[in-house]
Amino acid sequence: MSSLDKNIQIKNTLTGDKEVFKPISKNRVGMYVCGPTVYGEPHLGHARSAITFDVVFRYFTYLGYRVRYVRNITDVGHLEDELSGEGEDKIAKKARLEQLEPMEVAQRYTNLYRDMMSKLNVLPPSIEPTASGHILEQIEVIESIISNGLAYECKGSVYLDVTAYVEKYHYGELSGRVLEELMTGSRSLEGQSDKKHPADFALWKKAEPSHIMQWSSPWGKGFPGWHIECTAMSSKYLGVPFDIHGGGMDLKFPHHEAEIAQSYAAFDCAPVNYWMHNNMMTLDGQKMAKSKGNFISLSQMFDGDHPLLKKAHSPMTVRFLMLQAHYGSPIDFSNRALESAETACNKLLKGLTFINDLQPDDSNQFDKEISNQIIEKCNSCFKRMNDDFNTAETIAVLFDLLSLAHKISQASTIISSEALIGLKKTYKEFLSDVLGISSESSDSSDTLPDIIDVLLDVRKEARDKKDFELSDYIRDRLNVLGVKINDSKEKSTYSFQ
Amino acid sequence: MSSLDKNIQIKNTLTGDKEVFKPISKNRVGMYVCGPTVYGEPHLGHARSAITFDVVFRYFTYLGYRVRYVRNITDVGHLEDELSGEGEDKIAKKARLEQLEPMEVAQRYTNLYRDMMSKLNVLPPSIEPTASGHILEQIEVIESIISNGLAYECKGSVYLDVTAYVEKYHYGELSGRVLEELMTGSRSLEGQSDKKHPADFALWKKAEPSHIMQWSSPWGKGFPGWHIECTAMSSKYLGVPFDIHGGGMDLKFPHHEAEIAQSYAAFDCAPVNYWMHNNMMTLDGQKMAKSKGNFISLSQMFDGDHPLLKKAHSPMTVRFLMLQAHYGSPIDFSNRALESAETACNKLLKGLTFINDLQPDDSNQFDKEISNQIIEKCNSCFKRMNDDFNTAETIAVLFDLLSLAHKISQASTIISSEALIGLKKTYKEFLSDVLGISSESSDSSDTLPDIIDVLLDVRKEARDKKDFELSDYIRDRLNVLGVKINDSKEKSTYSFQ
Repeated sequence: MSSLDKNIQIKNTLTGDKEVFKPISKNRVGMYVCGPTVYGEPHLGHARSAITFDVVFRYFTYLGYRVRYVRNITDVGHLEDELSGEGEDKIAKKARLEQLEPMEVAQRYTNLYRDMMSKLNVLPPSIEPTASGHILEQIEVIESIISNGLAYECKGSVYLDVTAYVEKYHYGELSGRVLEELMTGSRSLEGQSDKKHPADFALWKKAEPSHIMQWSSPWGKGFPGWHIECTAMSSKYLGVPFDIHGGGMDLKFPHHEAEIAQSYAAFDCAPVNYWMHNNMMTLDGQKMAKSKGNFISLSQMFDGDHPLLKKAHSPMTVRFLMLQAHYGSPIDFSNRALESAETACNKLLKGLTFINDLQPDDSNQFDKEISNQIIEKCNSCFKRMNDDFNTAETIAVLFDLLSLAHKISQASTIISSEALIGLKKTYKEFLSDVLGISSESSDSSDTLPDIIDVLLDVRKEARDKKDFELSDYIRDRLNVLGVKINDSKEKSTYSFQ
Repeated sequence: MSSLDKNIQIKNTLTGDKEVFKPISKNRVGMYVCGPTVYGEPHLGHARSAITFDVVFRYFTYLGYRVRYVRNITDVGHLEDELSGEGEDKIAKKARLEQLEPMEVAQRYTNLYRDMMSKLNVLPPSIEPTASGHILEQIEVIESIISNGLAYECKGSVYLDVTAYVEKYHYGELSGRVLEELMTGSRSLEGQSDKKHPADFALWKKAEPSHIMQWSSPWGKGFPGWHIECTAMSSKYLGVPFDIHGGGMDLKFPHHEAEIAQSYAAFDCAPVNYWMHNNMMTLDGQKMAKSKGNFISLSQMFDGDHPLLKKAHSPMTVRFLMLQAHYGSPIDFSNRALESAETACNKLLKGLTFINDLQPDDSNQFDKEISNQIIEKCNSCFKRMNDDFNTAETIAVLFDLLSLAHKISQASTIISSEALIGLKKTYKEFLSDVLGISSESSDSSDTLPDIIDVLLDVRKEARDKKDFELSDYIRDRLNVLGVKINDSKEKSTYSFQ
């Protein structure tokens, strides 16, 4: 572990300040990130959050921390009207449309999400709990809040009592909203009349008999409110408080604000020490939204199957474009930005081989200045990542290292073995292990038939010229590799043995 | 859908008879299969069960049935001493060894299991529920059994009351055991004294305070017995009774016997109409067991990393070897059997291209006899699969079809277009879609560098002979494909652009 690892600074979105990270247990990190609601195709928003915290997970792990990373799957309880907590359960609605059991819908989109994350080289979290799998835990948290006098039951539903809550705790700290705003922001919808105060939010909802996702509870049949799952699962697997809570900044209100309130109300304790929020994305400067027709799913991105896309973009290009910005900044996706990211990403990847092939020179006459420059740049990788996980600047430093490598190669400059070893190790580890940028193996299987075709064409030319030595040589070499050539009068074909 | 689809016969292991399959809902199948306990490396036993029921899932789907296939993940409640239901929770034990939260252990092995199943071309089930995610549902089933007078609570644990049960229902129907045997088979262990009768089994177990996996229940803190999860999850997602319950034959007793008892005790109804059990495997004629050192994990199989293996075997070879036997028969894994399976599998896969390349001939003068033979063999594929999913015989029919294809090709025999279309369609669909045998794409990425090396060697030879036309041709063709050749004095290397 580098000595620099003690200097990680995190922009805590609760305080707005960049703070030195102090883990609760030495050399351990507990991190919770809000995962997807699995009622639809994974999209760029899912990717940005997952990639942001994947890099945080990777960097802490790289430094030698033992990280327990919990990212949930919301498979129940996420209502369509997120602000008021009313409306129809998103997953149940989709299920009725598709005539499937809601858990079949959830499973299908969960599988798709996992596949897409794997393509993006996002590591699986340590624990991936589901909301429907923690109903009992959610009921227990709600019972604690009721017994603390900060929630009430009404007609089979349970609401957090914001009026009682604000007498003891501050509400709105994360989003900076005041209670009056919260009241104004809450719309009058069916069922709202059960609440004592419009800003109260549901912890448990009574289910109508027709509702397909429902469980028994002390308040009758129902289902949990959206916010309570994260309080139940984070406290179960990480305790309270834990170290880091992450998510997209669109979740600050109401979701994360509600999590804070639920934690204080149940445990008399803040849920977490550091809040981190990744910023959003635009497409050609426009906010992405299904209604605008500029909403791109990850499948569409990887297949190029969207009217706004000029071509398909590989998962690694998407990952690289996201890491080229600091997670706290917005990103604009455009065809031009994607193409630039592709070029830049390939350049860094090609640099891996180039730098790895640099040969040491035992001469004592090395160039001190350039050796020191390289060592300094290697240290910069740590410094940039320690500075609130600044992947954008880390990538810039990797480009600097690559330029230096080209420079010393062209000028046949000799550098110290310390600098050479540092260069090779830092470049490879930050690119592959920390940023998770790697060449995509799928490329090679796509290229293989084309490369074999080149060989078959060379061989045909040789046969036409009656150069049987060459044509037999190609046939035999391919045969050893399991590629069998079948010659016919018209043409030669091949098959894998 | 073929007209043959109404004639599926299943060997029902409850009755011992081959029975015509009659679905509860027209054109729908509900199937539940016992999945892995995720406390260790996935092994050949997991693979056989998963592949067996994957083919059942695939064949019903192929015939046009809407299948809801539920395969669970046991992440809690599976005790080490399976017979008595006593002992330490397997996952909690492993967790303490590895100093991990038990759910981290479960997640890691769940991920590994999913990866391995994907390699084996086993489709994901429609729903993959976890035991820990259905505690509430398990508690509800237990409450029903208690209220029906067939279970009792003692010191925070709940047991099924076998004595009361046998007054109303038959116990031991599936395994053919009688109660006296069950009593003799149950060992006297610590905690057994809480039971009224040695054959009673735990539905809920009181947790000691040190036990890390525990939940609140009407009987205090505890955790579910192993058997109850399958009753809770199958009834939740499929109802009672549902169509098909599958699993390895080692699960007949006590697990499936207990499921039957729990279903009658809770719902006064059999859990399922058809029980299917896959047989076990031996290695060189020996039963596989960790203690014997002949226990091979799937990773070891695919890497060849086991003293008893001569070489690595691909997932498709393993899958093919399993399908070469009927699921109800034992299979002996040996180096020789694996090598034969590899050869046979590759032969059938090469047949795909061969048969696909057969050209139609519009002549009316086709060979009626051989055309009829082909059509009959195509129908045989359905017949063989309809006969209790006989994959072994289906594979034999596919070989017959391939022989016929070679025969007509060599003799330039003309067959009817009906026969040709049937041959192409049946061969491809039964091999790929029903049996799930496909060429492995991972091979190609391994081969690519070797194939490029052949081209570089041909090019070097050309350059040595000053045949610059050929050497430039190869360079340019590769360049278009993104493979850039870098020539130096000593040798040429390449990189991907």
